[in-house]
Amino acid sequence: MKPVRCLALALVPTLILLPQLLLAQAPSETPKPLDGYSQAASATEQSWETKFRTLPEPDHIREDMRILSARPHHVGSPYDQQNAEWMLAQFKSWGWQAQIENFYVLFPTPKERLVQLLDASGKPVFTASLQEPPIAVDSTSSQTKEQLPTYNAYSADGDVTGPLVYVNYGTREDYEELDRLGVSVKGAIVIARYGAAWRGIKPKVAAEHGAIGCIIYSDPADDGYGVADSYPKGAGRPAEGVQRGGVNDTEFPGDPLTPGVGATKDAKRLDRKDSPIITKIPVIPISYADATPLLKSIDGRVVPAGWRGALPIPYHVGPGSQDKVHLKMFSNWEMKTLYDVIARIPGSTYPDEWVIRGNHHDAWVNGASDPVSGMSAELEEARSFGELLKQGWQPKRTIIYCAWDGEEPGLLGSTEWAETHADELRQHAVMYLNSDGNGRGYFFAGGTHGLEHFIDSVASQVIDPEKNIPIIERTRLLQISHATPAERATIRNRSDLRIRALGDGSDYVTFMDFVGIPSLNLGFGGEDHGSQYHSIYDDFYWYTHFQDTTFVYGRALAQVAGSAVMRIADAELLPYNFNNTADTVSMYVDQVQQLLKSEQDKVAETDREIKEGVFSAISDPKAPIAAPKTEPIPPFLDFAPLQNGSRALTDAAQAYETEVSKLEAAGGTALDAPSIDAVNQKLMQTERAFFLASGLPDRPYFKHQLYAPGAYTGYGVKTLPAVRESIEQHKWPVAAKATVDVGGVLQKEADAITAAARLLPKAGQ
Amino acid sequence: MKPVRCLALALVPTLILLPQLLLAQAPSETPKPLDGYSQAASATEQSWETKFRTLPEPDHIREDMRILSARPHHVGSPYDQQNAEWMLAQFKSWGWQAQIENFYVLFPTPKERLVQLLDASGKPVFTASLQEPPIAVDSTSSQTKEQLPTYNAYSADGDVTGPLVYVNYGTREDYEELDRLGVSVKGAIVIARYGAAWRGIKPKVAAEHGAIGCIIYSDPADDGYGVADSYPKGAGRPAEGVQRGGVNDTEFPGDPLTPGVGATKDAKRLDRKDSPIITKIPVIPISYADATPLLKSIDGRVVPAGWRGALPIPYHVGPGSQDKVHLKMFSNWEMKTLYDVIARIPGSTYPDEWVIRGNHHDAWVNGASDPVSGMSAELEEARSFGELLKQGWQPKRTIIYCAWDGEEPGLLGSTEWAETHADELRQHAVMYLNSDGNGRGYFFAGGTHGLEHFIDSVASQVIDPEKNIPIIERTRLLQISHATPAERATIRNRSDLRIRALGDGSDYVTFMDFVGIPSLNLGFGGEDHGSQYHSIYDDFYWYTHFQDTTFVYGRALAQVAGSAVMRIADAELLPYNFNNTADTVSMYVDQVQQLLKSEQDKVAETDREIKEGVFSAISDPKAPIAAPKTEPIPPFLDFAPLQNGSRALTDAAQAYETEVSKLEAAGGTALDAPSIDAVNQKLMQTERAFFLASGLPDRPYFKHQLYAPGAYTGYGVKTLPAVRESIEQHKWPVAAKATVDVGGVLQKEADAITAAARLLPKAGQ
Repeated sequence: MKPVRCLALALVPTLILLPQLLLAQAPSETPKPLDGYSQAASATEQSWETKFRTLPEPDHIREDMRILSARPHHVGSPYDQQNAEWMLAQFKSWGWQAQIENFYVLFPTPKERLVQLLDASGKPVFTASLQEPPIAVDSTSSQTKEQLPTYNAYSADGDVTGPLVYVNYGTREDYEELDRLGVSVKGAIVIARYGAAWRGIKPKVAAEHGAIGCIIYSDPADDGYGVADSYPKGAGRPAEGVQRGGVNDTEFPGDPLTPGVGATKDAKRLDRKDSPIITKIPVIPISYADATPLLKSIDGRVVPAGWRGALPIPYHVGPGSQDKVHLKMFSNWEMKTLYDVIARIPGSTYPDEWVIRGNHHDAWVNGASDPVSGMSAELEEARSFGELLKQGWQPKRTIIYCAWDGEEPGLLGSTEWAETHADELRQHAVMYLNSDGNGRGYFFAGGTHGLEHFIDSVASQVIDPEKNIPIIERTRLLQISHATPAERATIRNRSDLRIRALGDGSDYVTFMDFVGIPSLNLGFGGEDHGSQYHSIYDDFYWYTHFQDTTFVYGRALAQVAGSAVMRIADAELLPYNFNNTADTVSMYVDQVQQLLKSEQDKVAETDREIKEGVFSAISDPKAPIAAPKTEPIPPFLDFAPLQNGSRALTDAAQAYETEVSKLEAAGGTALDAPSIDAVNQKLMQTERAFFLASGLPDRPYFKHQLYAPGAYTGYGVKTLPAVRESIEQHKWPVAAKATVDVGGVLQKEADAITAAARLLPKAGQ
Repeated sequence: MKPVRCLALALVPTLILLPQLLLAQAPSETPKPLDGYSQAASATEQSWETKFRTLPEPDHIREDMRILSARPHHVGSPYDQQNAEWMLAQFKSWGWQAQIENFYVLFPTPKERLVQLLDASGKPVFTASLQEPPIAVDSTSSQTKEQLPTYNAYSADGDVTGPLVYVNYGTREDYEELDRLGVSVKGAIVIARYGAAWRGIKPKVAAEHGAIGCIIYSDPADDGYGVADSYPKGAGRPAEGVQRGGVNDTEFPGDPLTPGVGATKDAKRLDRKDSPIITKIPVIPISYADATPLLKSIDGRVVPAGWRGALPIPYHVGPGSQDKVHLKMFSNWEMKTLYDVIARIPGSTYPDEWVIRGNHHDAWVNGASDPVSGMSAELEEARSFGELLKQGWQPKRTIIYCAWDGEEPGLLGSTEWAETHADELRQHAVMYLNSDGNGRGYFFAGGTHGLEHFIDSVASQVIDPEKNIPIIERTRLLQISHATPAERATIRNRSDLRIRALGDGSDYVTFMDFVGIPSLNLGFGGEDHGSQYHSIYDDFYWYTHFQDTTFVYGRALAQVAGSAVMRIADAELLPYNFNNTADTVSMYVDQVQQLLKSEQDKVAETDREIKEGVFSAISDPKAPIAAPKTEPIPPFLDFAPLQNGSRALTDAAQAYETEVSKLEAAGGTALDAPSIDAVNQKLMQTERAFFLASGLPDRPYFKHQLYAPGAYTGYGVKTLPAVRESIEQHKWPVAAKATVDVGGVLQKEADAITAAARLLPKAGQ
């Protein structure tokens, strides 16, 4: 009875916070144990987690932010190293085993930058300032000596002059529109606004279309007074604010010279000229103050309606008939040292099973929001675990907390570490949990879907500080408010809230797509509008005036991430839920079939409209628009391998969960058996069953067949990427092969789950 | 054989223009006669129409525009009268019987205008210029002495001071949003941007919500550099451009003092204070140059995303915490004389059946586009008919061409004429065909649906000057390009292209909604972007540089409108097609049922979300948004009367058309019989069968039960208005009565058609 009494006590604070759970569950009933826990272990776990969630303190998070964001701390800067060493000391002071691991990466910084507007005679009539001026009330904004200049890392070196063409967001769809408008960027410099796709896509697609240079600017419609009052009155990007950022191609993440292997001192390195991920053309980011004279200089026809930003000008496509732009970008191509802080609490029972948690610590400049708001929450989890250690808690599994360096230029620190330790990780890791910049508002979670039910359960016990309801419930209500009627029905009827699939954008990529570890990415946001993303103004003054100013969402992040780490570290049976994965895969399989149908319909309709004369009839002779290109109607594809694989996965998942449910119904005592670890060992291999060793078509680095960053979206995920992208790109032979290959992968996953299920103890045994 | 030979000859030019018709119709077959024509009469008609369409000349239209727009010619101005007298002389010179009819109307002009921004101490810090400056290249823009100042006619007099609130477009939906934002306009002055609803709705709704003054400005997003380069570089409204316009309530059109009766010299007049259509609060229009400091002065929260315009500022809702606005507007409330030019060609066979064609001639200033582009086309039709008269043509019915005065302030000239002659018109009129400003691009047609098939047929014989295809075909292709898949299927499968239902916006209103005459409104446009609507810059220089610069669309308008006038004037049987009306009514009956369903679903969903806590969960404590108001779920309504009425109408229409088809199949000789006029007399009453003598609920002036201007949209039409608006406004008892009343009207229409059908000669008799 001890465990049950203990449980009742442990639940008191939770029940106070969650009266609705009381209603759902008569007090006299024995509460259902946590997934993967026996009754006894569940009660103990709830007790420790409840204690844990009282520990994180907003003031600590604030103080960590103040320290970590006090000076610019980009890769290679003195304060970057200093922060790493300070965190190392912190971890150690809280009882962690900690060390710094170094890697050696190519990190270019600007040597020469120029953006000039030339008149017809070649005389410069405007020179972009390429500067973010200090703002009086914001003390760290004047640390000009330590600030990295505004630039896009891994831009090709180049000195080019050409006419300027406005390409909207610079996506492939935008170039299709330009084609129809009869505008070529061949030999031109393009100016694209930030947004719609990841910034690195813009110079990539521009170069594919023959452009010789690329300027990227922050339009106030997307990032400025179109969103919020300008800083310092409000949170919005001011006229001179610039978004820095890497533009390296997404063929692989990490150091450009060491694809697939850790950038240790003696690693074999590519020559820089052979690295495929440095851009083909020079590229530079500018503010909208600098962009305005450039955009004004463009003539030609007025842009299509959706291409307008919020500047007070009639946007033109160009090219400019008279003026040209002179763009110069040269970097110091230097090797820099990364400082990854790696801290551990050894596991008591399964020390060789690792729960990994990470957030990066490097910033483009001071980076209060990105990444310090997330890093400080992670530190507060670590401090709280230190408190629990003092109270006698010890996790069953080893917990590894990481503070990554070099995320900003291209996920360098996490990638090089994961590549270096890939074999160990494949053997030992049960989860990678990531966070990054954190804000005020709604909880969001993305990840691999075997962890969907798990993280939803954890998030149902963390309380939103503004609304006093579980954070997952607030997200569910937000989703209802945005949903179509069909989506609303799903949200209301499905027991778990769907988490997002992950593409690119933070340090989970290599863990998920190259190593193959079940991964999550968590955070809060959505309430504070306006951003200083990758600018000198993303600093302590700005954050503490306009973002999570009381750090209660920093605390909530520490609570949910720390609880998740504890719960998976202490579970007897790893709480992966394959039903959710199977349900999600089945949805993706439906989606790719619908996608093909919609591509077929689109081509057929376009073809019909061309024959009817629609495009000729609607083309204004004074501003002609050509018809879209014709092509054969997409062929039907054999989706049976995918459908069969999906069904096999569904069946295997259900069979597994049925067995687990029986164990739980029997009080879960069987979970306590030492033999359960054999199941866990099998379970730890299940995520990699989704891998193909050859990776995606044309992207061998990316092994996972359920998720990948889009080849032409960057951040944006593509699910069933081999199938989906080949259909989107009308590569029919590739698509035909992919349905077979990915169908096989789904079958492989089903087999892996079945193998784990066979090892489960039988209920009552 | 004579008619057939004659027909073949007559068709030659048409066949050259329309090669696709040749394909559809083997040359050896006898062509189908025009609707309502015997074979013989059809051939003659085609011959005359073909001749007619060669006559209008772009250079004449250009010259007419040059003359009519040479000076400001608003109601009461010397040039307004001079234009009328010049047109009178023109009509006479072309062989028309013509006269000027005068009416005497209340037409206010500005006496005092002031818009000032006051600081906290009441000191003025900005005074709006309220001026449109002359532009050097545009000679008539400097006729400042004759230009009406920028103002909204029929604004209440007033001198008010209050805080300023930005209300987006100032529609009812915008005030619902303001309610949720917790912002009241009580005691405030509102600033609304032009667009979304007719301008008069803005002060009306503002006053309903307690505002004390209303400023309307042209935001560049909707009307300025968001659309086109600024004038004179491009066609777009410049920073100082202002849209004048009437803001009288739409309770009835025409002179505010003589509702329902002609404003003749001795008409009984209301006292001005008793006229219900003068605004309740003072209102004034301004440019975006004048609006910018006002909008900048507003604090409070940033607007919802859809409320942003294109000014380079973060739009705020307000109210301003410090600054106030001082608004003064006083008018000279004077009586002015209207000059309607009325010209006739008497009918040879049915002189007592009238075909009426109109366009207004008054402008807010020079009005090259509005209205002179349409007026000049109408004049060119009249000149061309003069040519035909010389060649021996004479219409069977009397043709009446009108040039209306006083359209701009409130359809004054057309309304007072139609009210004065209402009884005669009900007895004699077979069609009213309207046009107004004309531009380059696509043919558009709106009207009563009995004329849908008729105008589609006429438009299939007029060739688009840019595309060399029939104008109706180009419109069809445009519609396909914009349509949803379901809409596309309808457009492709329905033999006639749907014409728009008409609300308000030009001189057809009284003819259609008060007198009850089948009506059409025609024109071209859609290709030239940018507008100088109701500004001093809508003049000859602007029009000839940026609009239908070669006047080929002026010619096309003359061709289609003139052909339509001829064809209905000469038809033996009036070519009303009731199948199209019945099909359209059936669609409307479906729509109002769907509307109720959607209102029920909306209320139920809102209610559910309130109970779930959605609105509370998504309300940011730093920028709260209240939940929408709750209300009982809308009741089910009995739609059977509408459905039965719609079916009766469908049956009667089909029976009528079947009889007519038999006559046509028999060569149509029976149509030639004198007895056919008895049918026509019945047909002329059919449009009025759609009337209820009591008019719409709360709007007795509007009798038509199929169409009306929306009570809260102004220009925008509401079809089945008594039913639709009462459902939209959740007035359930009104809606319940309306379904019965309107069902009865549909039955009445069915009976009227059946009565006409009974009088048709039988085929072979």
